[in-house]
Amino acid sequence: MSSTIEALAHDGWAAATVAAVAERAGVSRGAAQHHFPTRETLISAVLEQIFDEMTANASTTPADISDGVERVAAAVDRAVAIYTGTEFKAALQVWAAAASDPGLRELILPMEDKFARAAHQMTVAAIDPEGRYPQAHSIAQVTLDLARGLGLADTLSDDSKRRAQVVATWTELITAALNIDRA
Amino acid sequence: MSSTIEALAHDGWAAATVAAVAERAGVSRGAAQHHFPTRETLISAVLEQIFDEMTANASTTPADISDGVERVAAAVDRAVAIYTGTEFKAALQVWAAAASDPGLRELILPMEDKFARAAHQMTVAAIDPEGRYPQAHSIAQVTLDLARGLGLADTLSDDSKRRAQVVATWTELITAALNIDRA
Repeated sequence: MSSTIEALAHDGWAAATVAAVAERAGVSRGAAQHHFPTRETLISAVLEQIFDEMTANASTTPADISDGVERVAAAVDRAVAIYTGTEFKAALQVWAAAASDPGLRELILPMEDKFARAAHQMTVAAIDPEGRYPQAHSIAQVTLDLARGLGLADTLSDDSKRRAQVVATWTELITAALNIDRA
Repeated sequence: MSSTIEALAHDGWAAATVAAVAERAGVSRGAAQHHFPTRETLISAVLEQIFDEMTANASTTPADISDGVERVAAAVDRAVAIYTGTEFKAALQVWAAAASDPGLRELILPMEDKFARAAHQMTVAAIDPEGRYPQAHSIAQVTLDLARGLGLADTLSDDSKRRAQVVATWTELITAALNIDRA
């Protein structure tokens, strides 16, 4: 499955067929078709793994990061990490294909919804583990939309330098908005 | 050309061939090939128009918007408008195709660069026409990355309701950061 994610990210939508999966796995087309009787079942399995890995990138909040600016910075970094890996680049290929494929769109939307809720919950918890800031919910939302935009800017060329400045600006704005002191 | 943008956005990458353009325009394939001898020349022309229209969406700052919160809100709305039209959805198809096509990537990157600079300049001018806020440059950058993320969230389903909340949060954060009074 991870070779399919790699192939989607680097070779595009055409790489994610049952036949291509069989070839990469070195199994017969029949064997692959036993697991994935249709392309939809394949894409569905691939997307589930993509979303799992995207949230896995973001789900471990180091307990040793103390309160304050560092924790907010770590929370933002983690949100950005969701959208700057190979998984997001693979997801982008699925989304691009879904623009002209209503069936695929129907398949994706509930999965994406579930992912979005999980990512939001994790980002709120990372910014505000003790539930002290009511604004953390809307700030986490902006953080994830910004992270998605940064991920898209990173798909064709390495955008990490510019991104570091944007992340620094955003982290400053959040800490100011939450009145978090620089420890 | 605008029918090609429409077709890219709705039918995907496969719709942007010289043959498909000829068919939509009702001209012979030979006539279309006279204008666009290769697919690269076609894509290049389409992308140029896409970027022109994206900046056109953002380039007119109404002179009658007074200083203060309303002007910042209008600036943010305009940045978001760049990424929520058909042009962005068409651009997304080109970017997705470029992930597996180094030649296309080379073609896109300088055009995208030029577009990014223009969009940034316009957003800075919209937020801070009188050059009073040094932070306007970095805030404009975050605004555009956020707008790109919001655009991507709008490609598979209508995200306008959720987006309005994100835009409101962001506008509040900017006005607070710039110390702009609610007039």
